[in-house]
Amino acid sequence: MNDYYLGLDAGGTSTRAVVVSSEGHCRGIGKAGSGNPTSAGVDAATAAIRDAVTQAVTTARSGPVAGAALAVAGAGSAGHRAAIVAALSGLVASEPVFDLDVLAAYFSGTAAPDGYVLLSGTGASAVRVEDGRLAGISDGLGWLLGDVGSGFWLGREAVRAGLAPLDGRGATTLLTGLLLDRLGIAVDDSRQSGRTTTLVTATAALYAMPPLRLADFAALVFTAAGSGDAVAAGILDRAAAGLAETLAAVRTPDVEGPLVAAGSVLARQPDFAARVAPGAVVATDGLAGAAVLALRHAGVLVDDAVYRRVTSSLAQLAGV
Amino acid sequence: MNDYYLGLDAGGTSTRAVVVSSEGHCRGIGKAGSGNPTSAGVDAATAAIRDAVTQAVTTARSGPVAGAALAVAGAGSAGHRAAIVAALSGLVASEPVFDLDVLAAYFSGTAAPDGYVLLSGTGASAVRVEDGRLAGISDGLGWLLGDVGSGFWLGREAVRAGLAPLDGRGATTLLTGLLLDRLGIAVDDSRQSGRTTTLVTATAALYAMPPLRLADFAALVFTAAGSGDAVAAGILDRAAAGLAETLAAVRTPDVEGPLVAAGSVLARQPDFAARVAPGAVVATDGLAGAAVLALRHAGVLVDDAVYRRVTSSLAQLAGV
Repeated sequence: MNDYYLGLDAGGTSTRAVVVSSEGHCRGIGKAGSGNPTSAGVDAATAAIRDAVTQAVTTARSGPVAGAALAVAGAGSAGHRAAIVAALSGLVASEPVFDLDVLAAYFSGTAAPDGYVLLSGTGASAVRVEDGRLAGISDGLGWLLGDVGSGFWLGREAVRAGLAPLDGRGATTLLTGLLLDRLGIAVDDSRQSGRTTTLVTATAALYAMPPLRLADFAALVFTAAGSGDAVAAGILDRAAAGLAETLAAVRTPDVEGPLVAAGSVLARQPDFAARVAPGAVVATDGLAGAAVLALRHAGVLVDDAVYRRVTSSLAQLAGV
Repeated sequence: MNDYYLGLDAGGTSTRAVVVSSEGHCRGIGKAGSGNPTSAGVDAATAAIRDAVTQAVTTARSGPVAGAALAVAGAGSAGHRAAIVAALSGLVASEPVFDLDVLAAYFSGTAAPDGYVLLSGTGASAVRVEDGRLAGISDGLGWLLGDVGSGFWLGREAVRAGLAPLDGRGATTLLTGLLLDRLGIAVDDSRQSGRTTTLVTATAALYAMPPLRLADFAALVFTAAGSGDAVAAGILDRAAAGLAETLAAVRTPDVEGPLVAAGSVLARQPDFAARVAPGAVVATDGLAGAAVLALRHAGVLVDDAVYRRVTSSLAQLAGV
């Protein structure tokens, strides 16, 4: 037994692990591919998680850590959780605790026990945090039923708006050319059962992907809108309105702030983040929050001094 | 060899077969479950197709028919088609011809070789027909990328709008209660990780379905709008605008009409059909069109007399 703890932030894009001391010194980090068992599959996800944790523990030379807090997107089922715990055998000396990935996002922006986080990554949600715990949540209902203003939502709108002119519908938009470039499809106006080969090839390529991968096209909306495209600007307007509504749903007069903006969409698009979450701290990295969750679950009081130690030691490790 | 021909109309809801003489007399019909190999699976679909065709051939006492035209939704791949042809061995004396289900829909409303069909069922598309063949098509790009104003599109909007108020977002709408009734979920305001049990149970039930089954909730939009619900009326406005744009994309001054409205949404909602396709013949049954396609492929000229014989003999058979 030692006084090192493991924080894990596993999402659809990457999995990151950190070993932190009880004083808040981050000693080792690790990184691997998607650790989301729902989107990546449970075998690939658990392998990525074990890989990232092994790297962090090895770098820290900590031996098996005393405890672990795991923020894993898409690990709601008991089966997924058991598989992840099994993958960490020998690396963690006690039973790991699962926590919400959105809380890791929150604590990556602030040490305050009360506040809000608005997240737009592949999915989208807003959470009110009280006493370090989830006190209210809105959206996060997933790609089919919710996630308004998320990367998936934006990517789906981009793809539908980009395809429509190839089909004789909708307004002309830069999204069409950006989409075809991204798919590596050249314009071919020959016809197959009434449709252009361009359209047939593009739709076949898109249906060959898992639906969630439409999130990869979210950036096209910002590119097109930045070039003055009205269709793309309209999509951003609707995304912004949706995210504002999601955030408003968790606001209460009793909790003033701070507000953290997180997730790949908001981290990569600071102007959009400032629009939907004015005054927010933009958290670009969920790892600091995972370290904070690990310390909180170990009973460590994470005050401003500890928090500064976490973020500065993490910055040093990442800079190496 | 005889002069009987098989028409088959296989969709996501049901599969129907008809045996028709070269003079246009329908002699036998058959019905089975979903024959769409993409949504129902290839084994279930081919079994349904063989079942429906066997019923039709048995009732007609025709023995193996001379030829067959198969309008099968979701049978674009060579593998699916080969499986369907194999399932019909012994029932059809020559190689069956595959045709577009939307053409069967068109010829269920008219015998005219030139015209238009607007279809909104599980999917949505518009087609211009010239000389009995597809000359132009718009939309029909599937649930993820297109199908604006389809049953899936309406059902998805109904479900998202119905869930939002349970999540503190969106306007109050009758869709919430209609959705919970349909799912058989009682209101339970206890909380699970910040969400009401009602919301958690409803989203779990919806994600347990294949995404396309959201089409089953399309009717809720009409029910709610009929009771004056503004949210539902807004969904219908957007669906109508989308379908009008899809139809406009295939219109050309060279082809005047007729216009056929088809698919489960338009067949069941005559007021909505009149709104999106003014003056259209509403085709409630694709079977007449499948018989016409079978005759056309056999080289039979389907004039008004033959067409009337097809529809009246079909009506008699269905009435038995």
